[in-house]
Amino acid sequence: MSPRALLARWIVPVNPEGVVHEHHALIVAGERIVELLPRSELSARYPDIEREDLGNSVLIPGFINAHTHSAMALMRGLADDLPLMRWLEDHIWPTEQRWVGPTFVRAGTELAVVEMLAGGTTCFNDNYFFPDVTAVTASQAGMRAVVGMPVISLPTAWAENEDEYFSRGLEVHQAVLSDPLVTTAFAPHAPYTVSDSAFARMAELAEEMDVPIHLHLLEAKGEVENSRKQYGKHPLDRLAELGVLGPRLLAVHMTQLTEADMDRVARAGVHVLHCPASNLKLASGICPVAALDARGVNIAIGTDGAASNNTLDMFAEMRLAALLAKGASGDPEAIPAARALSMATINGARALGLEDQIGSLEAGKLADVVAVQLDVAETLPVHHVISQLVYACARSQVSKVWVAGKAVYASGSPVHLNKLEVADRAREWGQKLRLSQQSE
Amino acid sequence: MSPRALLARWIVPVNPEGVVHEHHALIVAGERIVELLPRSELSARYPDIEREDLGNSVLIPGFINAHTHSAMALMRGLADDLPLMRWLEDHIWPTEQRWVGPTFVRAGTELAVVEMLAGGTTCFNDNYFFPDVTAVTASQAGMRAVVGMPVISLPTAWAENEDEYFSRGLEVHQAVLSDPLVTTAFAPHAPYTVSDSAFARMAELAEEMDVPIHLHLLEAKGEVENSRKQYGKHPLDRLAELGVLGPRLLAVHMTQLTEADMDRVARAGVHVLHCPASNLKLASGICPVAALDARGVNIAIGTDGAASNNTLDMFAEMRLAALLAKGASGDPEAIPAARALSMATINGARALGLEDQIGSLEAGKLADVVAVQLDVAETLPVHHVISQLVYACARSQVSKVWVAGKAVYASGSPVHLNKLEVADRAREWGQKLRLSQQSE
Repeated sequence: MSPRALLARWIVPVNPEGVVHEHHALIVAGERIVELLPRSELSARYPDIEREDLGNSVLIPGFINAHTHSAMALMRGLADDLPLMRWLEDHIWPTEQRWVGPTFVRAGTELAVVEMLAGGTTCFNDNYFFPDVTAVTASQAGMRAVVGMPVISLPTAWAENEDEYFSRGLEVHQAVLSDPLVTTAFAPHAPYTVSDSAFARMAELAEEMDVPIHLHLLEAKGEVENSRKQYGKHPLDRLAELGVLGPRLLAVHMTQLTEADMDRVARAGVHVLHCPASNLKLASGICPVAALDARGVNIAIGTDGAASNNTLDMFAEMRLAALLAKGASGDPEAIPAARALSMATINGARALGLEDQIGSLEAGKLADVVAVQLDVAETLPVHHVISQLVYACARSQVSKVWVAGKAVYASGSPVHLNKLEVADRAREWGQKLRLSQQSE
Repeated sequence: MSPRALLARWIVPVNPEGVVHEHHALIVAGERIVELLPRSELSARYPDIEREDLGNSVLIPGFINAHTHSAMALMRGLADDLPLMRWLEDHIWPTEQRWVGPTFVRAGTELAVVEMLAGGTTCFNDNYFFPDVTAVTASQAGMRAVVGMPVISLPTAWAENEDEYFSRGLEVHQAVLSDPLVTTAFAPHAPYTVSDSAFARMAELAEEMDVPIHLHLLEAKGEVENSRKQYGKHPLDRLAELGVLGPRLLAVHMTQLTEADMDRVARAGVHVLHCPASNLKLASGICPVAALDARGVNIAIGTDGAASNNTLDMFAEMRLAALLAKGASGDPEAIPAARALSMATINGARALGLEDQIGSLEAGKLADVVAVQLDVAETLPVHHVISQLVYACARSQVSKVWVAGKAVYASGSPVHLNKLEVADRAREWGQKLRLSQQSE
């Protein structure tokens, strides 16, 4: 395909971290980035190139939402301000038991995809039932996804037992091999709901299949003590013995870490998927992001599901990650803006094993690109572009989004989804869920 | 004036807390609210009334930004990720010394007013130099403001010494008496920058003039120890002796409180102005909001200035206040959504002595009203209106804003300000500030 030039006042490639190019052009051919070059060189180098001028915008790589349960968007705000177990046992689980199936997951994922694309997210790492439906929904919308192959020792509408979780998960893995937008990860629920044998099997399979293992880990108080009671050991020891504690492990939450745990996680090359809003809202604890970052741990940012956030807004999550790291560590220099932006983009790609393909605007990578309008009252004056992106910008400033070089969000709407129909279905499901709650 | 009816799918009056009216009408005559009534009764009660239908929106009282330095919007993102004293001494103070004057304050306040109105804020409690300019700027935009009469024992472009701060402040107070949109408060900078005699004088004058005292207090570590060194006592003891510790005191930040301090603050009827984003960003500490709320302390929410936030977004601040209260206290039931909404509205009014006039949608109050569109992917499905407002909603969903019954923001623009001209001036000032930083 003949190349095109995306022109914008600023381009933040993310790698190298902290760099802002002014008056540059991003050259895209087909699905990939060819190069970045000064605008002054454009006419000489590419005399007849098709140009798209984004004005006083900044181009950034698309956000990677490193941990979410996208279909749970239908349960956004269904039950708030409750302790974790009452929230789960009285509200979320009964609702899921009654309603979760392919049509629920389709409607919820579509709602989430509309929200995420409009907010500049181009890839999400999902953990939910019916990942086959999630995969198709994302792909049809032109969005990139890593879908989880769930494993849990409890029966759900998706599978009856661990064996069936594996077999259904592996079917999904096979089915998406031909889809350039979708890959998979194992998604064991949590140490306390997955058996030793399942973890050991998963560790072997993950190696063979070259996929990550995406696990809720050390989310809240009590998890370490309960593990000592149930298994006679700390969850990190158990996971290490079962072959799971390594660079394939994407550990979500991680709010209960000692200094020694942090050293160990760093040594093992574990990736941390940080969900600050969900951790605060459920009062689970605070992930020690500044201390992990200082140890060189790769930290990516996720929104968690909309039932515990209650948004899928990566701008808000990135800002909160940067603010909370300073407040919790007492160090105002912890996680500066450029590092927070890395956590929301390239670090997510690294965790997912996609760092050669996405996460930054570099020659040879896939053109997952977001144009953000900075020339509005809310982000004026633009003293520092990256500061504005992290501390002041809202997702409503996203004007256009591309995945693999194709526009997927433009002029206020997703390109491949009818947002009015998606809203209609969300309203219908909302009513169904509320009525069933009231009748119980 | 003949009454008008504002119709919306939902109305959240804030008082009583937690109530959501569905399919009601808000009747407004001139600048005041006449009543709320079920839509089914509208035709019978007001047969020929002029109707404005806001569709699937929710009407809420306008936000009250309880602490800000609006003109500092021009320094948004000028210097981030720095410790407080380096931020102040190397960046903020030199910039202020060189540039702050009436035209700077005018341009900065206009920028802040455009941002605040668009985000549903109808009143702000300001603390900055040239409050005369702030007052006129807000009033001309149709926005309500409480402007601070600054007192600080250091010379600035506004005044040379404490006597002059008082005399200039009192002039401003006199000048705004005739303006229905503007009132004043004393705005002593901080305990460590204001003399005993100035505090004592202010306590007397505040009583005579019936105005609040708006003070940065116990913002960061070291303040208690330094006070013991400098004055031989704890700041709360000193303020109590000088007659300042009482229900006129609006104490901003309050991150350094013992249990005994909290009891004392509660007993004294001090109002706390909570600025969670700024406290996290500067790593000042965390205000113990859950414990203060449990003691019945009136807590209002402020954004602080855009130089340390970096937004004036009350939706974001309200959400952060609710999330952080849970995370910091370990109690997921702390500051539920309805309480957070009260903190962003009626509690601000109470702190400012304006609770009979604004802060809720009640018969007899001034019609400071905001319409928020909830029927978009980001806040669907609407299981609980107040949850959506607090945990999921963005300021971009604000569709119309009224102050004292008059539209001040509609169709994406402030009614009485030219937002393009305001943006032009912000860009010009931005360039000036950056050039002067580079030349130093």
